[in-house]
Amino acid sequence: MKSMHLPITEEKVFKDPVHNYIHVQDDMIWRLINTPEFQRLRRVRQLGTSFLTFHGAEHSRFSHSLGVYEITRRIISQFERSGYPDWPKEERLLTLCAALLHDLGHGPFSHSIEEAFQMNHEDWTCKILLGDTCVNSVLREVASDFPQRVASVINKTYEKPIVINLVTSPLDADRMDYLLRDAYYTGVNYGTIDIDRILRMLRPYRDRVVVKESGMHAVEDYLMSRYQMYWQVYFHPVTRSSEIILRQIFRRAKELYREGYDFSFMVEPLPALFEGNTTVSQYLRLDEALIQTTFLQWTAEKDELLSDLCGRFMHRRLYKYVEIDTIDRETVDGIRQAFRDAGLHPDYDFEIDYPTDLPYDEFHSGSPESDKQILLLDRHEHVREISEVSDIVRSISGIHRGRYRLYFPEEKVRNVLNTLPEDVKSVFGQVR
Amino acid sequence: MKSMHLPITEEKVFKDPVHNYIHVQDDMIWRLINTPEFQRLRRVRQLGTSFLTFHGAEHSRFSHSLGVYEITRRIISQFERSGYPDWPKEERLLTLCAALLHDLGHGPFSHSIEEAFQMNHEDWTCKILLGDTCVNSVLREVASDFPQRVASVINKTYEKPIVINLVTSPLDADRMDYLLRDAYYTGVNYGTIDIDRILRMLRPYRDRVVVKESGMHAVEDYLMSRYQMYWQVYFHPVTRSSEIILRQIFRRAKELYREGYDFSFMVEPLPALFEGNTTVSQYLRLDEALIQTTFLQWTAEKDELLSDLCGRFMHRRLYKYVEIDTIDRETVDGIRQAFRDAGLHPDYDFEIDYPTDLPYDEFHSGSPESDKQILLLDRHEHVREISEVSDIVRSISGIHRGRYRLYFPEEKVRNVLNTLPEDVKSVFGQVR
Amino acid sequence: MKSMHLPITEEKVFKDPVHNYIHVQDDMIWRLINTPEFQRLRRVRQLGTSFLTFHGAEHSRFSHSLGVYEITRRIISQFERSGYPDWPKEERLLTLCAALLHDLGHGPFSHSIEEAFQMNHEDWTCKILLGDTCVNSVLREVASDFPQRVASVINKTYEKPIVINLVTSPLDADRMDYLLRDAYYTGVNYGTIDIDRILRMLRPYRDRVVVKESGMHAVEDYLMSRYQMYWQVYFHPVTRSSEIILRQIFRRAKELYREGYDFSFMVEPLPALFEGNTTVSQYLRLDEALIQTTFLQWTAEKDELLSDLCGRFMHRRLYKYVEIDTIDRETVDGIRQAFRDAGLHPDYDFEIDYPTDLPYDEFHSGSPESDKQILLLDRHEHVREISEVSDIVRSISGIHRGRYRLYFPEEKVRNVLNTLPEDVKSVFGQVR
Amino acid sequence: MKSMHLPITEEKVFKDPVHNYIHVQDDMIWRLINTPEFQRLRRVRQLGTSFLTFHGAEHSRFSHSLGVYEITRRIISQFERSGYPDWPKEERLLTLCAALLHDLGHGPFSHSIEEAFQMNHEDWTCKILLGDTCVNSVLREVASDFPQRVASVINKTYEKPIVINLVTSPLDADRMDYLLRDAYYTGVNYGTIDIDRILRMLRPYRDRVVVKESGMHAVEDYLMSRYQMYWQVYFHPVTRSSEIILRQIFRRAKELYREGYDFSFMVEPLPALFEGNTTVSQYLRLDEALIQTTFLQWTAEKDELLSDLCGRFMHRRLYKYVEIDTIDRETVDGIRQAFRDAGLHPDYDFEIDYPTDLPYDEFHSGSPESDKQILLLDRHEHVREISEVSDIVRSISGIHRGRYRLYFPEEKVRNVLNTLPEDVKSVFGQVR
Repeated sequence: MKSMHLPITEEKVFKDPVHNYIHVQDDMIWRLINTPEFQRLRRVRQLGTSFLTFHGAEHSRFSHSLGVYEITRRIISQFERSGYPDWPKEERLLTLCAALLHDLGHGPFSHSIEEAFQMNHEDWTCKILLGDTCVNSVLREVASDFPQRVASVINKTYEKPIVINLVTSPLDADRMDYLLRDAYYTGVNYGTIDIDRILRMLRPYRDRVVVKESGMHAVEDYLMSRYQMYWQVYFHPVTRSSEIILRQIFRRAKELYREGYDFSFMVEPLPALFEGNTTVSQYLRLDEALIQTTFLQWTAEKDELLSDLCGRFMHRRLYKYVEIDTIDRETVDGIRQAFRDAGLHPDYDFEIDYPTDLPYDEFHSGSPESDKQILLLDRHEHVREISEVSDIVRSISGIHRGRYRLYFPEEKVRNVLNTLPEDVKSVFGQVR
Repeated sequence: MKSMHLPITEEKVFKDPVHNYIHVQDDMIWRLINTPEFQRLRRVRQLGTSFLTFHGAEHSRFSHSLGVYEITRRIISQFERSGYPDWPKEERLLTLCAALLHDLGHGPFSHSIEEAFQMNHEDWTCKILLGDTCVNSVLREVASDFPQRVASVINKTYEKPIVINLVTSPLDADRMDYLLRDAYYTGVNYGTIDIDRILRMLRPYRDRVVVKESGMHAVEDYLMSRYQMYWQVYFHPVTRSSEIILRQIFRRAKELYREGYDFSFMVEPLPALFEGNTTVSQYLRLDEALIQTTFLQWTAEKDELLSDLCGRFMHRRLYKYVEIDTIDRETVDGIRQAFRDAGLHPDYDFEIDYPTDLPYDEFHSGSPESDKQILLLDRHEHVREISEVSDIVRSISGIHRGRYRLYFPEEKVRNVLNTLPEDVKSVFGQVR
Repeated sequence: MKSMHLPITEEKVFKDPVHNYIHVQDDMIWRLINTPEFQRLRRVRQLGTSFLTFHGAEHSRFSHSLGVYEITRRIISQFERSGYPDWPKEERLLTLCAALLHDLGHGPFSHSIEEAFQMNHEDWTCKILLGDTCVNSVLREVASDFPQRVASVINKTYEKPIVINLVTSPLDADRMDYLLRDAYYTGVNYGTIDIDRILRMLRPYRDRVVVKESGMHAVEDYLMSRYQMYWQVYFHPVTRSSEIILRQIFRRAKELYREGYDFSFMVEPLPALFEGNTTVSQYLRLDEALIQTTFLQWTAEKDELLSDLCGRFMHRRLYKYVEIDTIDRETVDGIRQAFRDAGLHPDYDFEIDYPTDLPYDEFHSGSPESDKQILLLDRHEHVREISEVSDIVRSISGIHRGRYRLYFPEEKVRNVLNTLPEDVKSVFGQVR
Repeated sequence: MKSMHLPITEEKVFKDPVHNYIHVQDDMIWRLINTPEFQRLRRVRQLGTSFLTFHGAEHSRFSHSLGVYEITRRIISQFERSGYPDWPKEERLLTLCAALLHDLGHGPFSHSIEEAFQMNHEDWTCKILLGDTCVNSVLREVASDFPQRVASVINKTYEKPIVINLVTSPLDADRMDYLLRDAYYTGVNYGTIDIDRILRMLRPYRDRVVVKESGMHAVEDYLMSRYQMYWQVYFHPVTRSSEIILRQIFRRAKELYREGYDFSFMVEPLPALFEGNTTVSQYLRLDEALIQTTFLQWTAEKDELLSDLCGRFMHRRLYKYVEIDTIDRETVDGIRQAFRDAGLHPDYDFEIDYPTDLPYDEFHSGSPESDKQILLLDRHEHVREISEVSDIVRSISGIHRGRYRLYFPEEKVRNVLNTLPEDVKSVFGQVR
């Protein structure tokens, strides 16, 4: 163990709009933040395409990662000050590193690119931690197996469950930061939670971080905020529209690439992405600047489908949608056929979306140790799952809201509307 | 004049963290926002490289432009409700368009790129308004000379001075929005101004927008906020360091381009930029995504100076600095020579910076109509320049703060520190 | 109709922490605010004894009344700007007066005093409006029946139901202001609602104010905030404890007064209050300054029960409580008897409290015109009750939370704890 | 030393709108808060009559005292965590008690009552600490001389100057809390200071608390906020008007009392106040409830002057004012005589007010240890007075703003305006 592990002589701070200050008290944390791999997160937006709906939501995963680190630091600091015996003090630095680095593997427009190329950001986080990277070499200064230990917290195989639970749980620093931060940057005020109170109420208890019973109302409020943010922000139909177009661009480019199409603009590491054999060092060159530059170049591409889609994404000419309560396979096939008959593209000019969410997904029949649960600790040291105690949590847990949304390019469909069969026409005639 | 000029049937809103809602009441404003030229502003940050100092400052000129529009809309709405005779009601739409579009010509990392390539964003705004663009064609729907009228407000030649004054003055919507917005996104709370009060106190008076005397304290507070924001945010030494590196990259790339160097990555419209003959349609492809993508590719460039500078900018390994009260030509030459002797690059490994600011630059001897002044209107309809009335404004107006900062790559200089002459060594030995 | 009805030449404003500015645009509103009857509301706290739990909650009904007026003004202003035909424009001033004055009849520590003396603040509001008061004489300047019309809005008999509905409904200005204001002053952040959005979504529709369907989520959030504020603030057990003591003081003083006890301090209009024949002019002398002064004087009263209770209230030595899920008549009688046997006072040393709340009490089987409902208006001009559409509202509407709380003077009961029967002892031994 | 001195098992908190939570970690602090003497502060407003100008400013000295305690706790906690050798750790509890209790001696409408009856709240704080009070008996549990030590911190004779300096200095917890709190409750946003940054920058240095040089801008901002709050809130002309009426009431009542006038309402301890021989236990019965109750009763007093003044204060019918730049003795005498001639009361119908303030009063020629100074500590451990370093502080330090204001009862003066000499008439004819 080297001197890098020592606290830095004077605490450094980052000014942060959400937490006021981010306090860096360990030289190692400071050095991790300054690696190229962590700096790359400045070029990956926290909310992907949401800035096309909420123009203020231009914040990056860099900011969010600092926030997650800071909340984790405050939780641990409270645990240490109070001297709770169930918290393993020696795991402080490991936990802070895992909190800071947990999003390291996110790619540009993460959810869409993962879906389009069957990738997983958690896997990439571990690959970056363990690969030939600056982050890896900073972590190795603690101990040669330290990168592996950080990775095992992230992939949930670490030997001490409480460390995993602190980093990933329904009430973890990640979720608390994103609720607050996304609310702040979008300007939507549903995400305001009483984080100070929640933090004061957390207790290490055996293998878990639990909540003192008197913090129940603050947790209820947190779950309701989460519920509202999902429906107001994360599942916003305009954002979904932009994600659909993004996935269509990736899909179309992959098709063309396989056909040997000659792209006017194609820069490393895109070919590796299309071929599915991206290396760590290639992956680290992927960011949203590259994707946006590529798409802007492709607006002049000769493949009309690709250039149209790229223009839609870059200049925000998104698909419109209609909402319907239910839809069956047959109807979908009918629409596809009608679109094909009308000269539209059945795979690109029509998409179905069904948003879903479980604001708090308690485990009805599972073991009480399930890490998907929020546990309350009463004065008699009894632990109960929150929906046993809270009517409001029980009420909202059961809600599965959502309607089907049919997305399509409005002007194209409008042009052929009168040639469509009556039943299809009636669906798409009511666009908002 | 076409129907586009009519109000839209139901007001549209954008959720905004600073103004809560941006209200769009004219179809033309809605259509201008949806042009590719205006959407490009999403890819130009409002504060350039400041996000490297204040990580939250990732907001774009798109957001700011909406904010400027909204403040202008509120001012005009107040003027109309109160029926002030000095406000020319028929100029409403023109004024709103000028407010919305005034930043249209900003390039990526605007101040640095303007300095490096001798460009001016105001000129580019006018070129875009008058060129073969979507913005131009939307504006022409009002009247064929409407684009020209918007441009003349922006270049300050419009026939009605009060319209120019509303869009550009020491107390204009532009400055009010950026103070509030930059404070919000950086998290620095010096920029909080009582905008509601200021707006309530504005009055059209002859050719000017003036302030009711009872709003003096709110204006004082605004000027002090501006003063603090300049010193805390806009002139922050770390931000200046990143701007220096940015300008060095542009300078080095231009040198190499002129030498016929074979860049591994060079995409349109960069050659036109280097050659100084950028067209409007080329300019509109310039954005920060392109610059960041280029720089990331150039980190692997074979020219070591260029690749080092690009790595510094992309991975935030900035120059350090020392501050000195005063410096003369001879000392600078001495440092340059000493650096050269020690094997350092006298033009890249050493830069001098001198920040300066006039928080409120009243015109002591000028004509009372000067558009650089803030005028107060008393109950007797007398107009006085604010520094005549306000002690605090008079006090801060005279302050010209600032010390010289010498920037340099710390590790390079540290390596040769002992070979430097004593006087030079003593300067660079005290790095923070 | 006199000139008083005219708008005032320049709008006056009050600086308000919740709404930023309260705008007064009618001379009549300005004059009503300046009556002694309205100024009295400065001496009646908005949240009664809650300041003993949340020390910041020292705000008065004066502030709240201005806030209710301001929200109402904004709603009407939006209705007028949009020119909705279902809003009767000529009712503007009447509605504003009713909104401003609706709390005029609140007495000191309103809920407790109403319970103790069988009074009703709405009745008193009407009596003050119609009595020989300054408010009455200002209102009569509009028309001789204007005071009566304002009163009829408040007692819900006015001929135009939409005016009544605007002033009193589950989504009225009163509730919106108190949620925001109480959250602000207590520091509890559960009450933050997106009032701008709700106000933008309100529409006059036939006899009702309804909500545009796209505002549903904002209304959900409002109802959840209300739910949380009820449980976190309004039903806080410490506040309930202080209210119990307050009622006991009133009860004891009334007993003593009836017995002809010679109070060391007894000032007008307290005797009238005890005798139940308070006149309007006497009622207007009742305020919290008088009650607090009286109680502080009574801490030296020779009746030990009264002086002890007054000391408890003034110096915040409140009763403690235990919570139990359920309780029956027999158990209560048992406790009373045990207390009596142990020398405690069965009526003063023991109180049961059962808080209850219906955050949104829709009318399951009632007529669709019920004024207890929140109605949503869809694009097809169909109106639906919100719980038909919103899962979350349906979920929280059914919740009837609450446990019994037994309040008692801790040190007195502790002194005799060992003499109590085991079952009673076990209840009171677990005090928090 | 008894067990009372021990930390309490679980920290208690108060929810506070300004600091979010007030943390109580010592049983003694908890017990001091619960004394009748400290609870009395709930009935003394922090800003006296300012609620008549800013209706939200209804907060009490109780809230403020908790805030001062909390800021002091945070400062000491930072000193302890950092282990600075110049901070005497053993003084923690003493310092916290002094911070909490420093305002204990404030009377109702403190500044006015002190002026009217030649009292001083600091003296009364010490008398209460040392008298036969609950506060005294709680403090004595630490040591028999502990009350005396707390008093000596407050009257600035304690042996360790750094403790005095922490509790009273130009940058102390008292000033920081009141700026933040008064801004919050009035709704005026000039008082927003970056308290977290200031607290992080404080350092114990020899006998003083100094500021790290890098905190200079935060201190500048604090001083500018203070400057603005003085002129916007504390010296607001309407507030001054209400204070003038308050003092006139006290003056008139004293005159009548001396003349043996038979007051219809006169309750203990008012006679002692008039006679100037108030005891501690009498003083503790003085609060704003008593004063307001007395004044409301006196509105029906047969002395017309007294009843008119009381009505003005209670129903907010304040004096108007005119502002003039300068005034001399002769003019004042002239006005008095003219008022007398016109049948007005020269001592009650006319008052001169001259507000003054020194936002930061550095000591130009004094010793560098002056406790009126704010000292900056640079990296070389040199200490400099802030106005040496900061242009902005130097600028605002010299400003002595203020105009004379002449207050008078408008309708009375209007009635005789035409009988006044021309020069006097011209002054009072321009009332706002």
